[in-house]
Amino acid sequence: MHTGRLEAFSDGVLAIIITIMVLELKVPREAPTLAVLKPLLPLFLSYLLSFVYVGIYWNNHHHMFQTTERVSGGILWANVHLLFWLSLVPFVAGWLGENHFAPTPAALYGVVLLMSAVAYMILQQAILRAPGGNPVLASAIGRDLKGKLSPIIYAAAIPLSFFNQWLACGLYVLVALVWLIPDRRIERALAGSEGANAGGVQNESR
Amino acid sequence: MHTGRLEAFSDGVLAIIITIMVLELKVPREAPTLAVLKPLLPLFLSYLLSFVYVGIYWNNHHHMFQTTERVSGGILWANVHLLFWLSLVPFVAGWLGENHFAPTPAALYGVVLLMSAVAYMILQQAILRAPGGNPVLASAIGRDLKGKLSPIIYAAAIPLSFFNQWLACGLYVLVALVWLIPDRRIERALAGSEGANAGGVQNESR
Amino acid sequence: MHTGRLEAFSDGVLAIIITIMVLELKVPREAPTLAVLKPLLPLFLSYLLSFVYVGIYWNNHHHMFQTTERVSGGILWANVHLLFWLSLVPFVAGWLGENHFAPTPAALYGVVLLMSAVAYMILQQAILRAPGGNPVLASAIGRDLKGKLSPIIYAAAIPLSFFNQWLACGLYVLVALVWLIPDRRIERALAGSEGANAGGVQNESR
Amino acid sequence: MHTGRLEAFSDGVLAIIITIMVLELKVPREAPTLAVLKPLLPLFLSYLLSFVYVGIYWNNHHHMFQTTERVSGGILWANVHLLFWLSLVPFVAGWLGENHFAPTPAALYGVVLLMSAVAYMILQQAILRAPGGNPVLASAIGRDLKGKLSPIIYAAAIPLSFFNQWLACGLYVLVALVWLIPDRRIERALAGSEGANAGGVQNESR
Repeated sequence: MHTGRLEAFSDGVLAIIITIMVLELKVPREAPTLAVLKPLLPLFLSYLLSFVYVGIYWNNHHHMFQTTERVSGGILWANVHLLFWLSLVPFVAGWLGENHFAPTPAALYGVVLLMSAVAYMILQQAILRAPGGNPVLASAIGRDLKGKLSPIIYAAAIPLSFFNQWLACGLYVLVALVWLIPDRRIERALAGSEGANAGGVQNESR
Repeated sequence: MHTGRLEAFSDGVLAIIITIMVLELKVPREAPTLAVLKPLLPLFLSYLLSFVYVGIYWNNHHHMFQTTERVSGGILWANVHLLFWLSLVPFVAGWLGENHFAPTPAALYGVVLLMSAVAYMILQQAILRAPGGNPVLASAIGRDLKGKLSPIIYAAAIPLSFFNQWLACGLYVLVALVWLIPDRRIERALAGSEGANAGGVQNESR
Repeated sequence: MHTGRLEAFSDGVLAIIITIMVLELKVPREAPTLAVLKPLLPLFLSYLLSFVYVGIYWNNHHHMFQTTERVSGGILWANVHLLFWLSLVPFVAGWLGENHFAPTPAALYGVVLLMSAVAYMILQQAILRAPGGNPVLASAIGRDLKGKLSPIIYAAAIPLSFFNQWLACGLYVLVALVWLIPDRRIERALAGSEGANAGGVQNESR
Repeated sequence: MHTGRLEAFSDGVLAIIITIMVLELKVPREAPTLAVLKPLLPLFLSYLLSFVYVGIYWNNHHHMFQTTERVSGGILWANVHLLFWLSLVPFVAGWLGENHFAPTPAALYGVVLLMSAVAYMILQQAILRAPGGNPVLASAIGRDLKGKLSPIIYAAAIPLSFFNQWLACGLYVLVALVWLIPDRRIERALAGSEGANAGGVQNESR
């Protein structure tokens, strides 16, 4: 099974998730002044953070499947599982923004981030354990410090929300900023492997 | 006619169906406590079940069209017919969840599942009966026990809903679980056919 | 410019149009009985008709661009113009259904069908008049009886709506049924041209 | 990294943005007469203008990535940044239309247009500055008069909205009309470069 349709379907779902979130920003019906936009500010900030998170997942998903050519049924379902948790982001983002970053919504936001991160790790493992393995991805990930630390920070932020929700939300922002730095590991590993492949092709064509 | 755009259009429609269902989970405007989420639980469960069902259809659709290279006008319309019934899933899922799995919504959910299964069988037959046939798909499906039993179970669950809707919903969950096991038949048949093709190509290139 | 992204963007927009229409079918909040679904029947019928129409446009669009390899800026904008009119289908379909096929909504539905048909003809002309022409499409269309009659019927149905809206809606259904019969002209023309191309390739490779 | 998935994801997001805007045109529940449509006219005009703007961005995005084969992490994020600002178009379009082109919404509409234009310039610079450069795009853009003037006009229209919002909206329409003229520069540059490539291929194959 080629990865083409899995990527197309994931791109579609992620594109819809990232875009329908803006529907939570309801057009205000009151006077057309800046004052009526002020209550929308928390919703806007929660939209911005969630947009960045979905963007990060799309970016990493894109990089990961660059190293993959064929998918098994297990990988297909691990991917649907990831999309399920990400599909809940618009709901928890809306709840978080509507309630001006209150403790319970902040904790629930963390739960969805945590489950998405776990689902991503399961998908990554399914790709790595596929028959034939995936040495490019394996070497690109390396110790995968970012990937392993993120769910730990989310897990810590969930109970923290009930003590100080601003600290919890600060942790979500922090993890997003760490991931915003593009993952050059896979780009480097791919470049290396393409060089090797090109060499192989040259050898074959001789 | 190549299958490319049919797959792209179907991926788009299925991606939207699977994602707009979450819009039924309206962000609660009351106090930001876990208590206000409790009434959303049936809707969440109905969302989860429907997400799995749309995921199954995408997965099977993906597998089926892997065996197909060209489509006729009949196949295009059989596909649009399938998408029509699946497009009603968000509506019946919302009605089922809103009403906490009441008998009539449970029956209507079964009707949409039944019609989708029938539409899928019509599409499968259209592909099998296309000029030239489709031996890979034919051998992959075999007796197609799962495909033939599912609509029978849905048809039984519809009247059953009015006696015991939990049993009916239990049957929907059961069929979903049976399908969750990935359909290795097509993967095996494709692997076999690719081996044969590769052999053929080698023969030709000699 | 290749047609790839034009097709992908059009597939996306058409997939969204065809799917968001179902959001007009609001989940009823009253008792979970069949009786509360009855008022939704006109909306369901209007949804069904509009789903078929968008399906027809996608189908014909798909066939037309099968004959086209490169697009100019003019074709891109003619395509965006077509998508604009089709994007209004969910709105007029909702208005038609909500008002149980009242005269004014029936007329407005006809206006959107008419403008979409005109936009489709403009797009078709833009493709035919592109440098190099498009002999496959030209021969496939032939006299284009269906394409020329449809807008005339819509134009007649618009004033007719105010005398007998059922007759007008009947005309919309009739035209849809005529188009449902797949357009074998392009399939035949393509098959002919591919045979010719294959011959050409064989000649070249000798 | 190939541009394929970046284009697919952008096509998806732009297709959703351009289509969900029509959801702001709420189906009126009052009498089915033309009179109830009249208050929707400003919303319709704002929808039309925004549809054209998103169409222009898709068109230019399409042209720009025709000249690009590989993308870096920086280009991916510059693209997500552009999509973020464009995702706010449905919100500001709705606010502008709902309030019959009042000063503050007109100014906010200009802010989103300005930020989108700036984000587009950043993306263009990221592509031009990628390793190896992009001589086709560079020669196609030339002095980029349209690209440099547009943000200046938006920036001027924002404060102007508070004195005469019609003048500001007129400027938005004017810029849209200027961009509607398809960007033949890139088409010409591509045609030239393909001629050169074809020559190169011929040389190689000798």
